Amino acid sequence: MVIILRDNPAQKQIDSLVSWLKEKNLDVHIVKGAEQTIIGLIGDTSKIDIDSIKTMDIVEDVKRIQEPYKNVNRKFHPDDTVVDIAPGVKIGGGNFQVMAGPCSVEDRNQVLEVAEAVKVAGASILRGGAFKPRTSPYAFQGLGPKGLEILEDAKNKLGMPIVSEIMDISKLPLFDNVDIIQVGARNMQNFELLKELGKTKKPILLKRGLSSTIQELLMSAEYIMAGGNGQIILCERGIRTFETATRNTLDISAVPVLKELTHLPVIVDPSHGTGNARLVKPMAMASVAAGADGLMIEVHNDPVHALCDGAQALTPEAFGSLMESIARIRPFAYKR
Amino acid sequence: MVIILRDNPAQKQIDSLVSWLKEKNLDVHIVKGAEQTIIGLIGDTSKIDIDSIKTMDIVEDVKRIQEPYKNVNRKFHPDDTVVDIAPGVKIGGGNFQVMAGPCSVEDRNQVLEVAEAVKVAGASILRGGAFKPRTSPYAFQGLGPKGLEILEDAKNKLGMPIVSEIMDISKLPLFDNVDIIQVGARNMQNFELLKELGKTKKPILLKRGLSSTIQELLMSAEYIMAGGNGQIILCERGIRTFETATRNTLDISAVPVLKELTHLPVIVDPSHGTGNARLVKPMAMASVAAGADGLMIEVHNDPVHALCDGAQALTPEAFGSLMESIARIRPFAYKR
Amino acid sequence: MVIILRDNPAQKQIDSLVSWLKEKNLDVHIVKGAEQTIIGLIGDTSKIDIDSIKTMDIVEDVKRIQEPYKNVNRKFHPDDTVVDIAPGVKIGGGNFQVMAGPCSVEDRNQVLEVAEAVKVAGASILRGGAFKPRTSPYAFQGLGPKGLEILEDAKNKLGMPIVSEIMDISKLPLFDNVDIIQVGARNMQNFELLKELGKTKKPILLKRGLSSTIQELLMSAEYIMAGGNGQIILCERGIRTFETATRNTLDISAVPVLKELTHLPVIVDPSHGTGNARLVKPMAMASVAAGADGLMIEVHNDPVHALCDGAQALTPEAFGSLMESIARIRPFAYKR
Amino acid sequence: MVIILRDNPAQKQIDSLVSWLKEKNLDVHIVKGAEQTIIGLIGDTSKIDIDSIKTMDIVEDVKRIQEPYKNVNRKFHPDDTVVDIAPGVKIGGGNFQVMAGPCSVEDRNQVLEVAEAVKVAGASILRGGAFKPRTSPYAFQGLGPKGLEILEDAKNKLGMPIVSEIMDISKLPLFDNVDIIQVGARNMQNFELLKELGKTKKPILLKRGLSSTIQELLMSAEYIMAGGNGQIILCERGIRTFETATRNTLDISAVPVLKELTHLPVIVDPSHGTGNARLVKPMAMASVAAGADGLMIEVHNDPVHALCDGAQALTPEAFGSLMESIARIRPFAYKR
Repeated sequence: MVIILRDNPAQKQIDSLVSWLKEKNLDVHIVKGAEQTIIGLIGDTSKIDIDSIKTMDIVEDVKRIQEPYKNVNRKFHPDDTVVDIAPGVKIGGGNFQVMAGPCSVEDRNQVLEVAEAVKVAGASILRGGAFKPRTSPYAFQGLGPKGLEILEDAKNKLGMPIVSEIMDISKLPLFDNVDIIQVGARNMQNFELLKELGKTKKPILLKRGLSSTIQELLMSAEYIMAGGNGQIILCERGIRTFETATRNTLDISAVPVLKELTHLPVIVDPSHGTGNARLVKPMAMASVAAGADGLMIEVHNDPVHALCDGAQALTPEAFGSLMESIARIRPFAYKR
Repeated sequence: MVIILRDNPAQKQIDSLVSWLKEKNLDVHIVKGAEQTIIGLIGDTSKIDIDSIKTMDIVEDVKRIQEPYKNVNRKFHPDDTVVDIAPGVKIGGGNFQVMAGPCSVEDRNQVLEVAEAVKVAGASILRGGAFKPRTSPYAFQGLGPKGLEILEDAKNKLGMPIVSEIMDISKLPLFDNVDIIQVGARNMQNFELLKELGKTKKPILLKRGLSSTIQELLMSAEYIMAGGNGQIILCERGIRTFETATRNTLDISAVPVLKELTHLPVIVDPSHGTGNARLVKPMAMASVAAGADGLMIEVHNDPVHALCDGAQALTPEAFGSLMESIARIRPFAYKR
Repeated sequence: MVIILRDNPAQKQIDSLVSWLKEKNLDVHIVKGAEQTIIGLIGDTSKIDIDSIKTMDIVEDVKRIQEPYKNVNRKFHPDDTVVDIAPGVKIGGGNFQVMAGPCSVEDRNQVLEVAEAVKVAGASILRGGAFKPRTSPYAFQGLGPKGLEILEDAKNKLGMPIVSEIMDISKLPLFDNVDIIQVGARNMQNFELLKELGKTKKPILLKRGLSSTIQELLMSAEYIMAGGNGQIILCERGIRTFETATRNTLDISAVPVLKELTHLPVIVDPSHGTGNARLVKPMAMASVAAGADGLMIEVHNDPVHALCDGAQALTPEAFGSLMESIARIRPFAYKR
Repeated sequence: MVIILRDNPAQKQIDSLVSWLKEKNLDVHIVKGAEQTIIGLIGDTSKIDIDSIKTMDIVEDVKRIQEPYKNVNRKFHPDDTVVDIAPGVKIGGGNFQVMAGPCSVEDRNQVLEVAEAVKVAGASILRGGAFKPRTSPYAFQGLGPKGLEILEDAKNKLGMPIVSEIMDISKLPLFDNVDIIQVGARNMQNFELLKELGKTKKPILLKRGLSSTIQELLMSAEYIMAGGNGQIILCERGIRTFETATRNTLDISAVPVLKELTHLPVIVDPSHGTGNARLVKPMAMASVAAGADGLMIEVHNDPVHALCDGAQALTPEAFGSLMESIARIRPFAYKR
């Protein structure tokens, strides 16, 4: 951490700041120039509150030079984390998986039909929403516990692990048979939820918030890991920008950036990221080329009548074509 | 709602779409031009899923022309809502209130000292965080239930109603003696929480999310009102933009925009909105001039040692000066 | 275009609006519902000023349903435009080209050395800046006319066409021997410049502005085409968002979106788009996978001492490796 | 400037970097910790290219700690600049002025009529566009030289100084009788234009770009001042964000931030900043409360038929009412 002092601070004030810093067990280095004085701090500054220091009269600015996350930091854990989802289904460290299925669970037939289709096409994990975060209180909110039951049925019938979104801590007991618990973009900073998930042993799919920086995503993963659960998959799903041609702007550069900063696997959700079925295939291909460890794709057997997000769902046929394109590109994808 | 069809759709497809729409009890008007055909829908379209229609082959685009919110819509409730917080403390409909206090409750003496100071200066509601959403798991997370107790003590001693943030439904019983329950920016779309709060009779302070549109803020308020609780105060607290000179960009235009669209009172939090104590006063003054129904201001007796967000807290003296400036400007503030 | 009227407008006002619209040679269709009246306009509305209509008392909102661009619109010109740069060097319609070279021209040896290296690696067009837009007046501003001379020398020696950026109309005569005139992101809406370029017969490389929507990019291309020059290559080079981990957010979805909306070729500049040499390769690969018609890459023989943008330049070795990766992915790239 | 080195750099590499830095006449201070080494640079680092240093193998990151602008920096010129526009018309240093008039000059009668009205209401400077930057090539582009003539007529008749926008260097000679030359948002980084304006002695009104940071605005002002012209007025006019309820998000916090960083006067344009006539008054009042040195307001005698931006223009009556509100608030506005 570097503290930049205002011009001509009183020596007494500098001394007082320095002794305050030394109490925190930091190496304090003062660099005095003709015009400016800066203080360099060496040591673990992750618990120092930058804002407190900024308020001091003699301080002009403070800059952090170390990442504020430790457990998820690749610097301290250079090897890729491999998340073990089910027998033979791993993600990360060279293992690539596609999660596919309907946005929301509507009924047993729908789920089974879609699940069979995506399995045949090569998807290894079934996705489906039982609890749906909807902007409008009047929109379909998901089938709830019944939806999870339907997913579990499909899991048992087809031998596919399942992933579904949790929206509130109180529902955690319902997720016992869910293989990956998804934290949606809107809950990425629901810190109480993250703390609870940190106490479980379940793989967690953590989606980037609509307006969350990459560092904030890593800090949210840090919450889960600090609680004891390191089975985390990160997911880029589009950020909010001024552009309106796509629902969100899919930030594919997040893939190589994240893989440099953290050891956790990184997947991409081009369905939510674009909001447009016609863009899912090219963006899925781009994500794979950039080195993603997996994809999450919405597939619906009847997109026109889907109860939510129909505009971005692929038909099983289109999904099959996407999987073929992915298979051809994967061998030549970027590797760090 | 207006549906724009692609060029030269088959009449059969048009007929099928029209009959599907009529099933939803909508007046369907077809406008056929030489180059383009559009379908106008009159009636309650709030439950129609735009995305489903967009996926149809013959549809090029769909545009909603009515607001998707009803309860919070000023069109249907032209009179200002007045939220009744405590005897003699109302907000909205010409009633203006300032909420002030420390970002987080640290100890009994701190809270009492700050509370007395802000009361003397003219604040009518005491704010203080017992549960704190922090980006880092290593940062101070608030005193929890103990923090609420301390606030209640101050409330009893000084006769000031209190406002504090809830982060999870499970904590709701602890908020019995809290006069206004605050939903923070990160929880603005925690829909499960909003639904629960809709069942209470408590005034709710709903903060705009960092990257939430004004319409999304209104939809979140609609969740609460749809549940039966109309005692809602909206709060602008800065949005995330590319600018880094301020922590967020305080969107003061949200005040007149919201007051046109909804009957709910609107306040501004310039402390979080700017992240910088030196900017709190001018932005508080601007908010009042633009017609805000109140302010939420962080005040700390020792900002340098504040356990969180010290950089944006005012000293009691600075707060007193702010209150004087506000008092002078208020009589000339904008009125719709 | 659809005009949504306020509740209960006077018939006289409706009549007056309708006759005003009919004067503009538009088909006017009135759709009257119980609660709301809308007016549908069929015909060429590209010259109607939406804002004028919005100000009318009886109008609540106006929505455009047709794209405001014609010449660049794929609807009216379904076939891909192929831009002919030099004998054997075409771009678009299945033709893929890589433009590479230093950010700014520094001296003759540098340019020749880099040009030879990128040619050997497979680049077909040499890029280099003679006039450099720099945020600071104290930063290196480019060699100017001398820089263009050096580029032309390299062109003659190596038989490679060259691309360089123009910053002001007055410099146009200097670009006679430049094969592609580049309009930089900051000049994308320098309309006087676009008009002048529309009068030339030169291929134009039009870069998307930092905060320009895809529609604005197309409108700027429309300026050039309206002037008579249809030889336009569009370039995605990153947009400004809240994320700071990368210099800009490279919007790869712009590639398939643009290729759907327009017949013009679309390339990507991952060097400026990310600002980070380590991200150039994965993002170049992602761009190609998504269907880009070409790439623009910064290469420098001595990136550490580059006079501008060194952080994002590749060494010739790294560029060679990138070209190999691109060659492997290209056959499997997305096609509309 | 602070350079953060990667872990365990070779001493030889450190030595080489240090000697390179010393060649630039900088004081170099090495701070070595157990885990991390940082280098502090004291002296004038405004000409050091951060990006070059970032590319070095041993460098992890570089942080600038001094502002990159000097001439416009309040640190070096603590007193407010007062821009002298015409006899008795000054702006800055406590002098407040309102510029008002039509978006674009349409004809002589319109301009005279509006000019008289705004003068009566208290505006001291007449605005009007002769050259108009329009997104569409098919939109009205302004009357050009004829428009300037009409403005000059009004100036002579009413004794009001005039302000009008320049779009290209080649038109500079036409602006001889224009009192303030406006650089529009889209040209804020047209550096060639800024350099030319730096050579004139005219007051310049520099508008903030739609997606320009406050620091970039100051760097553009630095271009003009570095050329020798210090008569600069800065103008906040809204930035591009994700919000669509207003055309732009008017960043009123830019007023106090700018007044802290620079000695130049700062005005606000709420007409373009909101794009909505109903929001102009509250936002003008907010701007004044926050300490703006002036306002720029669009007024039209017939907003419904205005050839551009009619939706945001006030009628002369509404402008009169705005001026009265401003007059009441001004005495109590924020002062640094």
